[in-house]
Amino acid sequence: MADIAVLGHGVVGSGVLEVLLTHRESITRRAKEEIRVKHILDLRDFPQLPYAGLFTKDFNQILQDPDVKIVVECMGGLEPAYGFAKACLENGKSFVTSNKELVAAKGAELIALAQKNNLNFLFEASVGGGIPIIRPISQCLAANEVGEIAGILNGTTNFILTKMIREQMGFEEALAMAQELGYAERDPSADVEGADACRKICILASLAFGTHVYPQDVHTEGITQITLGDVAYAEAWGGVIKLIGMVKMGENGKISILVAPMFIHRESQLANVDDVFNGILVRGDATGDVVFYGKGAGKLPTASAVVADVIDCVKHFKARKYLYWEDAKPDYVEPFARMAGEFFVHIKGPGSSDQAFAAAQALFPQAARIIRKDEEPGEAGFSAAGLTPAGLDEKLAQLKKAGMSVCGRILISDF
Amino acid sequence: MADIAVLGHGVVGSGVLEVLLTHRESITRRAKEEIRVKHILDLRDFPQLPYAGLFTKDFNQILQDPDVKIVVECMGGLEPAYGFAKACLENGKSFVTSNKELVAAKGAELIALAQKNNLNFLFEASVGGGIPIIRPISQCLAANEVGEIAGILNGTTNFILTKMIREQMGFEEALAMAQELGYAERDPSADVEGADACRKICILASLAFGTHVYPQDVHTEGITQITLGDVAYAEAWGGVIKLIGMVKMGENGKISILVAPMFIHRESQLANVDDVFNGILVRGDATGDVVFYGKGAGKLPTASAVVADVIDCVKHFKARKYLYWEDAKPDYVEPFARMAGEFFVHIKGPGSSDQAFAAAQALFPQAARIIRKDEEPGEAGFSAAGLTPAGLDEKLAQLKKAGMSVCGRILISDF
Repeated sequence: MADIAVLGHGVVGSGVLEVLLTHRESITRRAKEEIRVKHILDLRDFPQLPYAGLFTKDFNQILQDPDVKIVVECMGGLEPAYGFAKACLENGKSFVTSNKELVAAKGAELIALAQKNNLNFLFEASVGGGIPIIRPISQCLAANEVGEIAGILNGTTNFILTKMIREQMGFEEALAMAQELGYAERDPSADVEGADACRKICILASLAFGTHVYPQDVHTEGITQITLGDVAYAEAWGGVIKLIGMVKMGENGKISILVAPMFIHRESQLANVDDVFNGILVRGDATGDVVFYGKGAGKLPTASAVVADVIDCVKHFKARKYLYWEDAKPDYVEPFARMAGEFFVHIKGPGSSDQAFAAAQALFPQAARIIRKDEEPGEAGFSAAGLTPAGLDEKLAQLKKAGMSVCGRILISDF
Repeated sequence: MADIAVLGHGVVGSGVLEVLLTHRESITRRAKEEIRVKHILDLRDFPQLPYAGLFTKDFNQILQDPDVKIVVECMGGLEPAYGFAKACLENGKSFVTSNKELVAAKGAELIALAQKNNLNFLFEASVGGGIPIIRPISQCLAANEVGEIAGILNGTTNFILTKMIREQMGFEEALAMAQELGYAERDPSADVEGADACRKICILASLAFGTHVYPQDVHTEGITQITLGDVAYAEAWGGVIKLIGMVKMGENGKISILVAPMFIHRESQLANVDDVFNGILVRGDATGDVVFYGKGAGKLPTASAVVADVIDCVKHFKARKYLYWEDAKPDYVEPFARMAGEFFVHIKGPGSSDQAFAAAQALFPQAARIIRKDEEPGEAGFSAAGLTPAGLDEKLAQLKKAGMSVCGRILISDF
């Protein structure tokens, strides 16, 4: 019998209870012993639940229970989760979490603490919900050098973009629909401004390249500026716009990492990841591209990833799972302004579209024009490769001086 | 230092050496000790290789070397691989293999033998090449009941079908091109007639549902009968033809399992798995659909999966990985003739296409007509749901009696 405690009885926490109860038999077979929830920490009462007697409001009751060897955290947010994690790992309890904010902000420290105390700190559910991704990267791809990871890591924004692409719905309307369906929160900023995807790409980057990357060091753009005009230009170019979190190891040992909307070619495996689904592409030197696809959020998918970690903890009470990275180091993240890439640029001038493009071409000799359906007078779109954001901004400033409006610039992916 | 031996220095075996040599440092870090190849078994000599001194033609030299704790088999074929596997597992050596034929034919026995002797028998590379799939199913999805698995499991046939779909190349021509490019063997029958995909779905079915399924119990159709006419009907229907291996657990505790070309809707995540790539969809009750995509074959992808297993063995010398299923049991596989499903049917009559369809409709009241581009006179296509193959065959026999030719019938997928 393995006793565990669950911190938080919200969407994911109650899902963990549901998965453990409905799959008791198969989980016991796989873990080789029964997993029993002994305590649930929540400030609310749930008198109607069959397991109402397990609730406590006192974390210390859990911390001081020597039977509890594994604590599962599904509260979200940095505090008090961080304090609880530290206390558990300092007191002989392995820690399983679905909390991406915690892992992105404190992963290196908590991993080191777990290692020091010969405990496990596992977080499969923190990225990609029910999609297995943390474990495959750390284990199955262990005989590879991962060179690049690119993913659609946030279901809410992917739902909104899918509505914009497929139904020509505007951003605001699509967001309102996402909120109505429960896919977006009342305050959607962490999703639509990219912070959620940023935490996840930080976790994947830390794992793949062995050095912690903090969210504040990552250039992050959301999708709030994306217009239906951009969507139409992407279609004319031959693809779709997706919010991508990506990281790539450079030859100089620095990583390029960012979260931004990007043009994705329609042949790409990520182009067909629609609605609330997530897709993560891992480019290994031996495996080539491997893509993982599935529901990136939701009660049961996330809970099943948490429970898989718990099973792993039970099976490895004495053998630590190898999941390790060092703390951040200076000058490791390439500044965004210096990352070279290809961009789509959307401008508008006082004259005709042809005149606008001609003005652009004078500054961007490599520009390839993209003509969208229903282009407005004076509007022009083009792609241009081999640019750094700093170099691009300089040229765009010149275009503005010459009387053009710059409606937007969007990265073009190479995967 | 962990000493291993490699059996077979063909495409995969030499790839294992390459991966171990080129990734020595990161592999050592991940395995926590250095992995050294001490012997390579091959009947050929490779005097030009830097590690030419490691070769032996005598398996007993490996078997009797107490330093060797892990033996890696990359020979393929049932014998002598099976004999070697047994001997290793009976003599204290864990066994890692990329050999799908071995696992599909002898998996239950070798797993039981490994368990009895507290050793590991691992075979991540046997399905999906470099795509992590065995481990995710057994570990990450441990807190799920898997209900269904469907996959494009054979790269050769997928390449041929992609050429037929995208370039209207005929089957024979596409096969010749695959052979020229090294994607198909001179005798392509194991690929094009479905035996390779069959072995792989047997392994996945055994793993997901805990009971061994032998290839001879699985209804297997290849792609040799697929015509460009069928491809055009699939397009008119709204999708593509793919060779699918699938298994589904029924409410009666029996599995439906088969390998056959199927109509796949173009919205399906499997529809865009093209060329030599593989894609595997796992439908779990908690996770929903999770899809794994990547290169299903090739030297380095497969070798990297083998090496990942070796790393896992090194890390778990004393802790067995949990990978287990029982031997086959009678009446467990639903007979193909009784599996209900939806079919596409392609007929041709002496009169007009309308007359041919009218004759079909008399027997199939649920028939939905599909009209393809460049339909030939007298030709008609339709889909009909709620049919068993036995029931369908009966009706098709009646159509034939009435003077129709039945050009083909193809399953329609529901994923």
